Amino acid sequence: MNNAAIGIFDSGVGGLTVAKAVRAELPDESIIYFGDSIHLPYGNKSPSAILQYSFANMRFLCSLGVKIVIVACNTSTAVALTKLQAASSVPVIGVINPGAQAAVTATKNGKIGIVGTSRTVLSRAYTKSIQTICRGSNFNEKKIVVYEKACPLFVPIVEENFKNKKIIEQIVYEYMRELASKTDTIVLGCTHYPLIRPVISRVFPRIRLIDSARSTASAAASFLRQNNLTKKKDGNTKLHIYTNDINEVFKKISHRLFPRKKILFKEP
Amino acid sequence: MNNAAIGIFDSGVGGLTVAKAVRAELPDESIIYFGDSIHLPYGNKSPSAILQYSFANMRFLCSLGVKIVIVACNTSTAVALTKLQAASSVPVIGVINPGAQAAVTATKNGKIGIVGTSRTVLSRAYTKSIQTICRGSNFNEKKIVVYEKACPLFVPIVEENFKNKKIIEQIVYEYMRELASKTDTIVLGCTHYPLIRPVISRVFPRIRLIDSARSTASAAASFLRQNNLTKKKDGNTKLHIYTNDINEVFKKISHRLFPRKKILFKEP
Repeated sequence: MNNAAIGIFDSGVGGLTVAKAVRAELPDESIIYFGDSIHLPYGNKSPSAILQYSFANMRFLCSLGVKIVIVACNTSTAVALTKLQAASSVPVIGVINPGAQAAVTATKNGKIGIVGTSRTVLSRAYTKSIQTICRGSNFNEKKIVVYEKACPLFVPIVEENFKNKKIIEQIVYEYMRELASKTDTIVLGCTHYPLIRPVISRVFPRIRLIDSARSTASAAASFLRQNNLTKKKDGNTKLHIYTNDINEVFKKISHRLFPRKKILFKEP
Repeated sequence: MNNAAIGIFDSGVGGLTVAKAVRAELPDESIIYFGDSIHLPYGNKSPSAILQYSFANMRFLCSLGVKIVIVACNTSTAVALTKLQAASSVPVIGVINPGAQAAVTATKNGKIGIVGTSRTVLSRAYTKSIQTICRGSNFNEKKIVVYEKACPLFVPIVEENFKNKKIIEQIVYEYMRELASKTDTIVLGCTHYPLIRPVISRVFPRIRLIDSARSTASAAASFLRQNNLTKKKDGNTKLHIYTNDINEVFKKISHRLFPRKKILFKEP
């Protein structure tokens, strides 16, 4: 039993989809979220910049006494997770492995697609994660092929809340038609993407969509339960949302996911 | 006569369209460009963050001895120009006033449209600038109405070099049709936008498009000539491109505008 909060960080507001999934999965846990908005988006930054920001984010959460850190940013997980885990005194869970695991479990034809930011796709982190999983005993028999595709317009579509659904459908089709023709399972490998999941489902109804936010929340829940780190049910459950830049996009998406929740400012 | 370089800064690589226009207008001048890529985009940051970055950018250029600073970022000009001018020991030119001036000169029906990032549009800086110009003697007679529209997908379309021209045309139409139905002149109020100018012209052939990069280059040229600050024609002309994060997008667009030009790294 451990009553400390679960720490979650992202490059901005997108990781709140993970916080939302954690809240649904573990309603009695306290959550401290930090969005590094002044450096958003990580997707077009260099690896060394991403490393530096990720460490600063983790240090901030640890300074508030969290019991576990969830890296709710695919780009950050792809670039920095191993180094964060090596340096941290608390467990660190990334957002890639749980999604990869869920995809391997879900696929019937052994062909998995990944959509994400340019940086996540360039890192090929999902492909590597799936290959590692397949080398493990449970999936030894499966021969899995992975296709990755960067979709740089998805994040601004979500952040703007772009209204013309017909155009969004065309953009979704343009980016994903090749993946969808080859695979039966596609991982939404960016925390913003669950917010356009309904459109993606409509365009490709045949495809199994893996929401990495939900997969990560499940993985965190399993980890806490297995290690006896869950919080006492005492009705005293906090959700603190911090960011270093309270801008319009952050406010809009935060209120969409957690209405009435105050956003706390952290000095950059 | 002053042989020092012209300093130009932007929140990233987009302002290189201004550097390109300055080079075309003043081929004998040296240019030092700085792109604050680690904080890109400014469009969704808070005013206080934008102020802080703008001052740091100006200090960097001044430390290299430039004779004038061009703020090649609409967001930064909208939020920080007056304060930068008050604090600087060299002249500072923003990117809004020249575009506004060119639009007032170009319009026949007195209706001007502005497209830009959310932050630029929220600031209403173009509207204010046009109102100030109209209050001046030359345009006293003209009654000008200004309509502004944020187009958040344009920057990522340019940065990605999105290939499906049909979809870009639809996005352009979606954002701009209302402006185009009311106005005869539209200002491309973001330095990225000149790179999709051909598509915009195709969708709205009737509209006069004002390229704020070119207008700013002309304004800088006039200022230097009027104040006897131009450089001696000595064949010794430099163009130095600095950024604090050499990422793929920066490289791609820099090479599109200035092929073979080495990008210099500035410690963040």
